[in-house]
Amino acid sequence: MHKGRLEAFSDGVIAILITIMVLELHAPRDANAASLKPLLPVFLSYLLSFIFIGIYWNNHHHMLQAVTRVNGAALWANLHLLFWLSLVPFVTSWMGPSHFAAAPVAAYGVVLLLAAIAYAILARVLIRHHGKDSTLARALGSDLKGNISLVLYLAAVGLAFVRPWMACAIYVIVALIWLIPDRRIERAMQEKPSAAGSARV
Amino acid sequence: MHKGRLEAFSDGVIAILITIMVLELHAPRDANAASLKPLLPVFLSYLLSFIFIGIYWNNHHHMLQAVTRVNGAALWANLHLLFWLSLVPFVTSWMGPSHFAAAPVAAYGVVLLLAAIAYAILARVLIRHHGKDSTLARALGSDLKGNISLVLYLAAVGLAFVRPWMACAIYVIVALIWLIPDRRIERAMQEKPSAAGSARV
Amino acid sequence: MHKGRLEAFSDGVIAILITIMVLELHAPRDANAASLKPLLPVFLSYLLSFIFIGIYWNNHHHMLQAVTRVNGAALWANLHLLFWLSLVPFVTSWMGPSHFAAAPVAAYGVVLLLAAIAYAILARVLIRHHGKDSTLARALGSDLKGNISLVLYLAAVGLAFVRPWMACAIYVIVALIWLIPDRRIERAMQEKPSAAGSARV
Amino acid sequence: MHKGRLEAFSDGVIAILITIMVLELHAPRDANAASLKPLLPVFLSYLLSFIFIGIYWNNHHHMLQAVTRVNGAALWANLHLLFWLSLVPFVTSWMGPSHFAAAPVAAYGVVLLLAAIAYAILARVLIRHHGKDSTLARALGSDLKGNISLVLYLAAVGLAFVRPWMACAIYVIVALIWLIPDRRIERAMQEKPSAAGSARV
Repeated sequence: MHKGRLEAFSDGVIAILITIMVLELHAPRDANAASLKPLLPVFLSYLLSFIFIGIYWNNHHHMLQAVTRVNGAALWANLHLLFWLSLVPFVTSWMGPSHFAAAPVAAYGVVLLLAAIAYAILARVLIRHHGKDSTLARALGSDLKGNISLVLYLAAVGLAFVRPWMACAIYVIVALIWLIPDRRIERAMQEKPSAAGSARV
Repeated sequence: MHKGRLEAFSDGVIAILITIMVLELHAPRDANAASLKPLLPVFLSYLLSFIFIGIYWNNHHHMLQAVTRVNGAALWANLHLLFWLSLVPFVTSWMGPSHFAAAPVAAYGVVLLLAAIAYAILARVLIRHHGKDSTLARALGSDLKGNISLVLYLAAVGLAFVRPWMACAIYVIVALIWLIPDRRIERAMQEKPSAAGSARV
Repeated sequence: MHKGRLEAFSDGVIAILITIMVLELHAPRDANAASLKPLLPVFLSYLLSFIFIGIYWNNHHHMLQAVTRVNGAALWANLHLLFWLSLVPFVTSWMGPSHFAAAPVAAYGVVLLLAAIAYAILARVLIRHHGKDSTLARALGSDLKGNISLVLYLAAVGLAFVRPWMACAIYVIVALIWLIPDRRIERAMQEKPSAAGSARV
Repeated sequence: MHKGRLEAFSDGVIAILITIMVLELHAPRDANAASLKPLLPVFLSYLLSFIFIGIYWNNHHHMLQAVTRVNGAALWANLHLLFWLSLVPFVTSWMGPSHFAAAPVAAYGVVLLLAAIAYAILARVLIRHHGKDSTLARALGSDLKGNISLVLYLAAVGLAFVRPWMACAIYVIVALIWLIPDRRIERAMQEKPSAAGSARV
């Protein structure tokens, strides 16, 4: 089976998800600059979700790059990932207008956590299909970043009920982990185990 | 005629359909976890429709894989299928908030039934274009699953007016038929007729 | 310049246009079959527009098939076409709920007319770029169907203010012209002039 | 890394952005032609934004044409551009209904300015990746048009608070700069420096 349509369909869904979130940014009724102020939390949650979905697209792009063929299990594992990502606009539009209250911030973390688990499942399904010695398996490596993200999401979901802003800070940290170090840090961290795990971003 | 744009256009429409349904999941006004509870039926109908549209994309993907060329009739048969699929978000957003009442549950089944008929027509148009001995014809085979689905949809539409939950149970069963057995069961069931019909999922 | 991205972008826009129209089909509040009845005009205008946009995608697909390269003028002529098509959801959502009143029905015709003119301009730009003896020029030919459509749209816009239903009947006729005869009728009609003009559908 | 998915994803996002703006064109409740009149400013702001996003797609298309490979930095620079473009529907739906009031008109200019800066960053990232002597670098040249646009946007944002219509006039001028002269004027203007900078449109 060719991977072309899997990529095209995923691109379509992710492009729509990243775009329809902006529909939640309703134009203010008043025409003065001050009326933008109440939109700030909505804007910030949009920005955060834009970055997270961008990271997923980026990682998805890279993972599929190393893939040579897909099977039925991979199609469903991919749809499973897209399902959780499709809930990101929902939790985003709950979290922003609530001014980052406890329950919406926790729900945001739960959806990110489930999407991350779905991504890990997809990676595993693809690796099983390609073999443990495939380029794909070596490219994904031990997936240190992915595992750290899972732990951080779990922590954030718990913390959300105590100090929501700390959960939000963790989401920002996870985003930065994926955005900034782009190989260099990881390479340094994993010099020994085989330089693997660094190609995922 | 190349099949590339037919696939690209179908991917686009299906990606939009599977995604815009989430717009019906309106974020609750209150910021507590309890306010998610009334969303449960909306969420469940979204989940069901996500799986059904995912199955269609999956099957469409596989059918087109075996296709080498398309003609005008195939383009229109495909648009006909997309039309009925485009009504899935409508019946989904009727069924969920109605808490699975009789009429919406029946309407849901009618749309699924018409989409399934449209899919069968598309398959027939493509087979006529490729010949009865083509890979495509052999891959689709006698289409046992497709025919069982049609009968189940019909039963569900009737049952919806008596016991809506039984119609819903049937929708879940149809989804499972397409999701789970993925060849193995079918292969066992059709060992004799030529192992055909099994490649559709 | 490659035509690939022009096709991909057009497919994306057309796929979105054909799909977002269904968002106007708001689920009824009541959960009985009778509550679907007031939706009938909305549904009919959706169906008509779905077919028209389907025809445009179909024709666009065929025209681009014969195209080997695109220039800047073609990109803009294509965007011009997409602009008028993007207004179809707007006039559709005006026409249906108005129960096919005069002004909305006329506006619908104006948008279809401008889209048809934009299509003719795009065809001309592509032909100028490929030469009068190109496959494309021969495939599009004298474009009898296109010209008949323009005249019918004009008539419908005028008639809409007298008898809206007659304008609607004309829209249905135009759709049938493009849907049904698919070569055979046209071939018969144009046997002499060179068999051209028939490949557009 | 292949540029295919970057193009496909960008096409998807841009196609959605250019299309969802039409959702702001709400059909009037009344069914007479006069009820279209209040929609005029909404329509004009839609038209302007459609053209701007069309220009971006056009330029993006051309720039990527000359690109042979993309790296992680380019993926993020591209997402950064898409982020600012994703805010165009928001400022459009603020500007139109406000009848081109000061603050919304200025906000429109700010978003266009940031998108233009993001485009310049993307160009720089791609040039750095391809080398200063690459086809891409020569094709983009000194980017006279891009720099003029930046200055004009800045002027418009300031002017918006004094005379909003003058800011709007500047937006129209910027659009015309990109739409009309398409090489000829620019070639004349830059005959000496190497004929570069003209290929961007």
